[in-house]
Amino acid sequence: MNGIEDFKKGDLRTLARLISLCEDGDPKVIDFLSEIFLLKGHAKVIGITGPPGAGKSTLLNTFVRLIRKENKKVAVLAVDPVSPFSGGALLGDRIRLMDHFNDPNVFIRSLSTRGKLGGLSLATRQGVTLLDKFGFDFILVETVGVGQSEVDVRKLADVTLVALVPEWGDSIQALKAGILEIADIFVVNKADREGADRIEKELKNVLHLAGKDETPVLKTSFNDLTTVEALYQSVNSYLDAHSPTIEKKREVGIQDAALELLEYWVMQEARTWLKDHMESGANPYEVIKQFQKKYPKGSLFS
Amino acid sequence: MNGIEDFKKGDLRTLARLISLCEDGDPKVIDFLSEIFLLKGHAKVIGITGPPGAGKSTLLNTFVRLIRKENKKVAVLAVDPVSPFSGGALLGDRIRLMDHFNDPNVFIRSLSTRGKLGGLSLATRQGVTLLDKFGFDFILVETVGVGQSEVDVRKLADVTLVALVPEWGDSIQALKAGILEIADIFVVNKADREGADRIEKELKNVLHLAGKDETPVLKTSFNDLTTVEALYQSVNSYLDAHSPTIEKKREVGIQDAALELLEYWVMQEARTWLKDHMESGANPYEVIKQFQKKYPKGSLFS
Repeated sequence: MNGIEDFKKGDLRTLARLISLCEDGDPKVIDFLSEIFLLKGHAKVIGITGPPGAGKSTLLNTFVRLIRKENKKVAVLAVDPVSPFSGGALLGDRIRLMDHFNDPNVFIRSLSTRGKLGGLSLATRQGVTLLDKFGFDFILVETVGVGQSEVDVRKLADVTLVALVPEWGDSIQALKAGILEIADIFVVNKADREGADRIEKELKNVLHLAGKDETPVLKTSFNDLTTVEALYQSVNSYLDAHSPTIEKKREVGIQDAALELLEYWVMQEARTWLKDHMESGANPYEVIKQFQKKYPKGSLFS
Repeated sequence: MNGIEDFKKGDLRTLARLISLCEDGDPKVIDFLSEIFLLKGHAKVIGITGPPGAGKSTLLNTFVRLIRKENKKVAVLAVDPVSPFSGGALLGDRIRLMDHFNDPNVFIRSLSTRGKLGGLSLATRQGVTLLDKFGFDFILVETVGVGQSEVDVRKLADVTLVALVPEWGDSIQALKAGILEIADIFVVNKADREGADRIEKELKNVLHLAGKDETPVLKTSFNDLTTVEALYQSVNSYLDAHSPTIEKKREVGIQDAALELLEYWVMQEARTWLKDHMESGANPYEVIKQFQKKYPKGSLFS
């Protein structure tokens, strides 16, 4: 495939075009990734997730500034799990707000697949892989939603931040529902608001009960940038302290990449098959039983 | 398969056992569903979704009471998109709070598949189908998360309620990100708190801009049960007014059921294949390319 030399030279337009191909689920991406498989990146991947309104975008923006202060290259991938109906308008808004448009060492990109089956998760993983191999020092991946997002940011990120706001103090439910396993670091954002101390305390309580006292809980406020700097330090410390685990996780990630691709491909085949075999009014369970009879377990790919 | 006669007779233990089989992804469920395919239910399926802390469980509880007042049978399916690590503890808590334990016309069940691939969505659909054919008048399906949940309640429900709380007034982001397409009715819960009027107004604004002025926005407060009664009325009016659309949606649902089953089955096959073909350190994109070469588009199921 064309573009490998441009990609290696750091051509941003080639990168942007490749990420669009990821969004489209274009099979050319597989060829490209296959050919650059041996090209090693060194990016640190930071996942940021949390409910809407938790200040994730502002946090991202500040992180970009701190990373640029150290003269490092940073990419932001804002994953947009938007409905198939409304398109990716949300991120368009968000990106316009950002301050780094003219900096060639900052690459900001939203990712949306408009509801294609399994496509967003796949596109995000491919996007992160491309950004890593392109040579960024940091990749920030933002997703909305905690724990049940179509895109499991935890799988892709070396460190995952979960951002909450004081208003979520009531939501200990959420903390139990998987959130504890996602967060490497908790961020209580907008911490100058009422209730910040309470949610911090509750978080620490729940972490203690789960035997996870070591998980940092940091309060941040955009009115006091030293708080965000402290968070950035904490993220870097986490990355340093966990580098062997992170290495292993990346190995697993490569296996996962193959699995997701295979699933996506096979599922498209399955859809086509079903369209041809399922008449209106048919008993779907009977159709499936016929399929299973025709292709018994273990026979399909042999 | 055994149990069909007991099921038809209304044996709750048989029903509970079948739902457990759904959770386990047991293929016996397909046999069972195939055999009772012609058995028609008449349940109205009400989906309730929203962020954690939005008071969904209390809302459910009150709805159950209102339905029972009319002497109708009701099932609650609380879908637990919990992480594979922590199990279904959350719902255990929730269910213990409920008031209807000794009422044989109320069936309350949580559903959790402990992270099995695609399993939760599948199990939920099968669970709803079983409850419908069992003869319930209403099925309430609760999911956490808005728009990006693994379980798309909107697909399963005849009417979908999205519950928010005043604290979410800031989160117009969320409203854009697909939420408008999910909600048939918006509920501003805990409406005696500050900010309820503001979020109601914002919701109505956004709905107006989206050309959806007809979507009801109702404020509810558990301190004033008439507000929940009004919501219940609104839900029933919606169901009456949209019965032809709901009929069509159910037809599509039957097709979807087949597709999900097929996908689940084929994906398990794909996993097995990959385990046998993907060595550690291998280039995953090369493996996928080999697979696609071996099984070109359209050749897999022929």
